[in-house]
Amino acid sequence: MIKIGIVGGTGYTGVELLRILAVHPEVEVKCITSRSEAGMPVADMYPNLRGYFDLVFSVPDPTVLAGCDLVFFATPHGVAMRMIPELMAAGVRVVDLSADYRLKDLDTWAQWYGMPHETPDWVAKAVYGLPEVAREEIRQAQLVANPGCYPTAVQLGFLPLLEAGLVDSARLIADAKSGASGAGRQGKIGMLHGEVGESFKAYGASGHRHLPEIRQGLSAAAGREVGITFVPHLVPMVRGIEATLYAELNDVADFERLQSLFETRYQDEPFVDVMPFGSHPETRSVRGANQCRMALHRQEQSNMVIVSSVIDNLVKGAAGQAVQNMNIMFGLDEAMGLNAPALLP
Amino acid sequence: MIKIGIVGGTGYTGVELLRILAVHPEVEVKCITSRSEAGMPVADMYPNLRGYFDLVFSVPDPTVLAGCDLVFFATPHGVAMRMIPELMAAGVRVVDLSADYRLKDLDTWAQWYGMPHETPDWVAKAVYGLPEVAREEIRQAQLVANPGCYPTAVQLGFLPLLEAGLVDSARLIADAKSGASGAGRQGKIGMLHGEVGESFKAYGASGHRHLPEIRQGLSAAAGREVGITFVPHLVPMVRGIEATLYAELNDVADFERLQSLFETRYQDEPFVDVMPFGSHPETRSVRGANQCRMALHRQEQSNMVIVSSVIDNLVKGAAGQAVQNMNIMFGLDEAMGLNAPALLP
Amino acid sequence: MIKIGIVGGTGYTGVELLRILAVHPEVEVKCITSRSEAGMPVADMYPNLRGYFDLVFSVPDPTVLAGCDLVFFATPHGVAMRMIPELMAAGVRVVDLSADYRLKDLDTWAQWYGMPHETPDWVAKAVYGLPEVAREEIRQAQLVANPGCYPTAVQLGFLPLLEAGLVDSARLIADAKSGASGAGRQGKIGMLHGEVGESFKAYGASGHRHLPEIRQGLSAAAGREVGITFVPHLVPMVRGIEATLYAELNDVADFERLQSLFETRYQDEPFVDVMPFGSHPETRSVRGANQCRMALHRQEQSNMVIVSSVIDNLVKGAAGQAVQNMNIMFGLDEAMGLNAPALLP
Amino acid sequence: MIKIGIVGGTGYTGVELLRILAVHPEVEVKCITSRSEAGMPVADMYPNLRGYFDLVFSVPDPTVLAGCDLVFFATPHGVAMRMIPELMAAGVRVVDLSADYRLKDLDTWAQWYGMPHETPDWVAKAVYGLPEVAREEIRQAQLVANPGCYPTAVQLGFLPLLEAGLVDSARLIADAKSGASGAGRQGKIGMLHGEVGESFKAYGASGHRHLPEIRQGLSAAAGREVGITFVPHLVPMVRGIEATLYAELNDVADFERLQSLFETRYQDEPFVDVMPFGSHPETRSVRGANQCRMALHRQEQSNMVIVSSVIDNLVKGAAGQAVQNMNIMFGLDEAMGLNAPALLP
Repeated sequence: MIKIGIVGGTGYTGVELLRILAVHPEVEVKCITSRSEAGMPVADMYPNLRGYFDLVFSVPDPTVLAGCDLVFFATPHGVAMRMIPELMAAGVRVVDLSADYRLKDLDTWAQWYGMPHETPDWVAKAVYGLPEVAREEIRQAQLVANPGCYPTAVQLGFLPLLEAGLVDSARLIADAKSGASGAGRQGKIGMLHGEVGESFKAYGASGHRHLPEIRQGLSAAAGREVGITFVPHLVPMVRGIEATLYAELNDVADFERLQSLFETRYQDEPFVDVMPFGSHPETRSVRGANQCRMALHRQEQSNMVIVSSVIDNLVKGAAGQAVQNMNIMFGLDEAMGLNAPALLP
Repeated sequence: MIKIGIVGGTGYTGVELLRILAVHPEVEVKCITSRSEAGMPVADMYPNLRGYFDLVFSVPDPTVLAGCDLVFFATPHGVAMRMIPELMAAGVRVVDLSADYRLKDLDTWAQWYGMPHETPDWVAKAVYGLPEVAREEIRQAQLVANPGCYPTAVQLGFLPLLEAGLVDSARLIADAKSGASGAGRQGKIGMLHGEVGESFKAYGASGHRHLPEIRQGLSAAAGREVGITFVPHLVPMVRGIEATLYAELNDVADFERLQSLFETRYQDEPFVDVMPFGSHPETRSVRGANQCRMALHRQEQSNMVIVSSVIDNLVKGAAGQAVQNMNIMFGLDEAMGLNAPALLP
Repeated sequence: MIKIGIVGGTGYTGVELLRILAVHPEVEVKCITSRSEAGMPVADMYPNLRGYFDLVFSVPDPTVLAGCDLVFFATPHGVAMRMIPELMAAGVRVVDLSADYRLKDLDTWAQWYGMPHETPDWVAKAVYGLPEVAREEIRQAQLVANPGCYPTAVQLGFLPLLEAGLVDSARLIADAKSGASGAGRQGKIGMLHGEVGESFKAYGASGHRHLPEIRQGLSAAAGREVGITFVPHLVPMVRGIEATLYAELNDVADFERLQSLFETRYQDEPFVDVMPFGSHPETRSVRGANQCRMALHRQEQSNMVIVSSVIDNLVKGAAGQAVQNMNIMFGLDEAMGLNAPALLP
Repeated sequence: MIKIGIVGGTGYTGVELLRILAVHPEVEVKCITSRSEAGMPVADMYPNLRGYFDLVFSVPDPTVLAGCDLVFFATPHGVAMRMIPELMAAGVRVVDLSADYRLKDLDTWAQWYGMPHETPDWVAKAVYGLPEVAREEIRQAQLVANPGCYPTAVQLGFLPLLEAGLVDSARLIADAKSGASGAGRQGKIGMLHGEVGESFKAYGASGHRHLPEIRQGLSAAAGREVGITFVPHLVPMVRGIEATLYAELNDVADFERLQSLFETRYQDEPFVDVMPFGSHPETRSVRGANQCRMALHRQEQSNMVIVSSVIDNLVKGAAGQAVQNMNIMFGLDEAMGLNAPALLP
């Protein structure tokens, strides 16, 4: 059994990790930390876990964490980077669900996250945990930076096009939409049901932290610096991301082979599903599941490729992908604990 | 492997059966029928099942069904009762998720379902499949009438009070609320998102089909004919039922022992969770899970017992309970395939 | 033009007052106060008001308020009671939308609101502003205590039964359901969309502040102390309250005349609509409108009267009723500014 | 008083017309037709209108319609085009909310609406009723083709850019999102709450009827044939459209003057509100109101202009704009009956 620690367990990614790990046959959760809720049984905060865990939230204890095989960080940014060196030194492996190790460029990180990075050497060593791109590096990694939710949906949708060099990489557009759980579990007025319910809006349209993360990943895939416009939107639902992606084909004749390009690119991927050309993936088709489902579209004789890509922001966009990374890191079946179908309706 | 047939698979209980059976280790789904969608792959209608089943909806074929070990009926009322005799004769076991065999009184059935019953002998032999009441009979049954969604939430909440004879059984009140999936997957204007969304209402307040079913079960528990008022309501959500139950204690002193009465009644039940006194169960705490979660309340020095009981109408209120019954009937672990935590948030 | 002040304008009842007053032909809003948002233009916080008001939130200024004809308090409890004496002395009339003057019993108020009342003399003089009960007193009042949202829906539904003495007033039950805006606009985790969305639950089932307010009103109507159980629930929608009320008829023969009793009781009321017997009022049928819509039900031969009563919690349950009270106090047409139909769908 | 007829009144645009006309001081609704619901009182179907109208749905009667001053068509496509010639001959003026007279190109119309047009001469004479573009023509028109919901939000957002010739008109992108009421009030399974609730998806991504309508309007504004990609999405809410628009500036220096360009373009428009640069319009800020609210964005040093534009699809996207057109046609104050603020929250 893999001994697991979870740092920062009171948020939505924390409870989602527990939901998944509750039925994972090869792990044992040794501790889950929360400074603010220390002493509270996990099942009191999350009654869906009643009967699954006797865990009590605890103040982070370096000794306990150092005794784990793997620690998940489900913390706000800036927390993991301070605790990482000690855990690394102790030989603990880490999957960081926060943004601390996602960006390789330290200035960009500092600009978007409002503080200088404190452990730049570990930034260099961390592996960006998108298994569809970096499975082998993840297998060897001690520190995995789990991708953001939007970046997962957007990158998986654009990757085949950029890797094949078929589109104008200077003018990519990603119009993305997310349920409210993506904003986390903090008492912000703007995220009240009274504010979010029965309404729709763009946000962060002048710039969002996930933009540099997306650009970094897509630029690597394209082999050059891409130009991308990314606008996130808030949907009055709890879970789910849909990203509609727009890219111009360099050669309109390539439309013929796009579907097979995508199918081939993802044929061995357990968690990417390319639907038939012209399908419309629904977020509910991946609710609670570690899936990215996508489909291609073309309008009339346009040279614009349209990709619609959906994930559950808390699963393939966070906790599920983190467990997938853990499975890879520990040589387990990559789908272990992640094989239940989505909850539809 | 238990060979499974599903009759009437295009509705919400049909897809929910498949979702659960997809990861059940001891079953093999041999056929799923739909006259209207015959020929369509199941995964085309329900993309959450892509990769799990190669099944195609088929016209019901008596020979194929007769070759199954167990057939689930997820049909509108009036369908199962016509197909049951042949299946019974063939030695097939059946869990009927429709209402055809729930009511023992044939006149009452005819009154509420608008047609005479065609196989009254099988009404007499059918076992009402509420495991918390009739586990042993279910084990032996060839034909199990799976309870309705409201009746499950209401009966489980009232049972300990009535079995112990502590309340005035002549004036029970059940105020119940359900998400929209309870109305099924038919193109009714009243169930459009444009009608249901961002609104709330009572319906069936002058009488609902589940009232006689509830009364039958509670009367058996009480050992006398109970008087009950039952008002269902439509909640702008997809899944979940909450029932708030009201009963007057005969002896106000009994309030002291109610919590332990409930805990004792359900201590060995894998799928009933009695929360601490004064808790407020949320429907999301059972979303996708085969659980009934409940809690007790008292206001000031009143002698009114208040029970709040929640289930997922498609799981413990339909497909999950059906699989629980199947597990019991075939001597499997009762929780097999039903042990994942609820999806919260 | 009536000069209006609004104290505490940043919450949902504040913006709702402005929405209604924006098109009221006989008022002029002179000031709207908020200590926390002082200096912010109202239309920056509430863009639906862009073009309607040039108002800026200001720190409460006693001189400015004393220059108003009417001041609305849309504050948390405990604020109005400290500012009332000065305004009363200045001859200003007040409609207090908070709970400060709703309960006549000072001990009960102190118990539920957690502080002693500071101006008990004004408690005695305040008029409880339910126009359907106290129109003439409201006309003369200097200080009107605007009813709570649940108490409005519940009292209007029970009143005809209690005034006529037809039901057992010792065992009334009110099972009420509210949208999330009823909890106000404060950053509470429990009211996040991620917590409230796609879920349903009871809350305050062991006791809620509106219970004594309801009991006070119903006891006055019945001419004796009533016994009532009140359980509120949280619906995943923004606006709307539905209350399902249960009362036992003393004489079952009275069922014949209930519909006409209700219709007669409310025939001259501009804002109470008795639907045909057996109807199911929807909250959306009163969305944004100052209406209470209700209907009666009976199940089989039961002696239980069922009333379903709906309001918009922010309108007839708060700001609309406050404007209705203002219209009465100033001798205007009672429906002035309140005559637009509800927003359906 | 203007005598009004409404043909096809049972849908959402029909009830919305009635809601608005109920408090319009210069109209009298003489008839509202529905073949399927003939004989039903309007207020029985739409209880929000109880007390406002005594109207009963009636079979369309040419004589009655010919006696009206203005007839609104709120019918499926193909109905208005057959009744128009007779009404035109009778001198009746018409605002057609259906798509019958929106497209000038008859082949395009036939392709998208699946039938040949039967009255092409009236297609030529009809005025496309976007007041911000064609106010004077509307004033004189006998037949106004009321714009579609998406085309209203998209055209208003792009117009200033195209009229000024500042952007690359060959590669416009409109990513639009709509609430479920946009699909009308018909019993389609795909529009059930159980299907739409708590989910999000693109639809019509390979082509949608509103695409040629949008292209026609934008091409006229640009003075050349534009190239546009348009992808609609379904949001789990009832009302509201948000369109996020992307266009590349020809000269990046023009970013400096975009805000004033938009403000100037719409400064005299009563129903278009340009918010400060960088704002995020919410659909709820226009709920129930005849408003289009928009804001501009830029990401880093990109030359991509981003416009977010919101309307209520049933108001500025349908019935409200129809009444605005009527006001213009009859020389009334353009805002008559349309001046209430949006319902927020």
